[in-house]
Amino acid sequence: MRAIQDLYPDDFSHCYGCGRLNAHGHQLKSYVDGDDVVARFTPSAQHMALPGFVYGGLIASLIDCHAMATAAAAAERAAGREIGDAPAPRFVTASLAVNYVKPTPLGPELEIRGHVRERTDRKAIVELTVAASGVVTAQGEAVAVPMPPNMGRTPHSS
Amino acid sequence: MRAIQDLYPDDFSHCYGCGRLNAHGHQLKSYVDGDDVVARFTPSAQHMALPGFVYGGLIASLIDCHAMATAAAAAERAAGREIGDAPAPRFVTASLAVNYVKPTPLGPELEIRGHVRERTDRKAIVELTVAASGVVTAQGEAVAVPMPPNMGRTPHSS
Repeated sequence: MRAIQDLYPDDFSHCYGCGRLNAHGHQLKSYVDGDDVVARFTPSAQHMALPGFVYGGLIASLIDCHAMATAAAAAERAAGREIGDAPAPRFVTASLAVNYVKPTPLGPELEIRGHVRERTDRKAIVELTVAASGVVTAQGEAVAVPMPPNMGRTPHSS
Repeated sequence: MRAIQDLYPDDFSHCYGCGRLNAHGHQLKSYVDGDDVVARFTPSAQHMALPGFVYGGLIASLIDCHAMATAAAAAERAAGREIGDAPAPRFVTASLAVNYVKPTPLGPELEIRGHVRERTDRKAIVELTVAASGVVTAQGEAVAVPMPPNMGRTPHSS
């Protein structure tokens, strides 16, 4: 099975959080799992908040990128396609909310799980959890919108 | 004037987003500016979402760390101290919400500005903006709580 991010067009595969073409980034990979979309990520030692715990910015990043992939999968499904049939549509984040339920231990692989609660062609509302060793440590909600056409080029091009 | 993060105790200065002792991290520095707290940060080329734009996870990270510093400054002020008089208290994020008002261009220095809307000894609600070249591109709200005593040691120590 292919990761949703690996189906983004090359031009939109540079995201620090999940772009396969960003050598410095996290390269998050999200996979369809029934009605959910799931990703696994093991933070590095430097990704700490306080010794022993993952910093909140990374958790927000993982939720963000995974939500966009979850929205892309739902859009493909709504269009009657399976993931892998075609390039995946690129969504961007309109808003993001994270509830840090408890400190996330640094060390274990994290599981990020998303599902679309509500969608139209104009947006998707994605609910997510982050779990460490089976314990949910953060909950998220993101509003994903299709990438606006003016983001498809750099601000410096015309 | 000293950055609030530079007044965190050494043991709590390893945060990837803002710890002065994290050589790999962003080392965000937040300064009191009247009733606000302000930080400036220039994303690196790799911190992109799509070519030409900052990735949302970084924006969430900056808002998160800056909110904790803003809460620390307000707690110091409430205690009758100026920033620099004593080590700054360490807050952690209970929740975080980011509204991505418009795409954030990659290139310009970003200004992150926070102020405490509401506080008690148990929590502070911090409102924030991120601006590029004077244009607000993201708004945030974070709930900061004093670091729980059990986060002061690693999960592996006893």
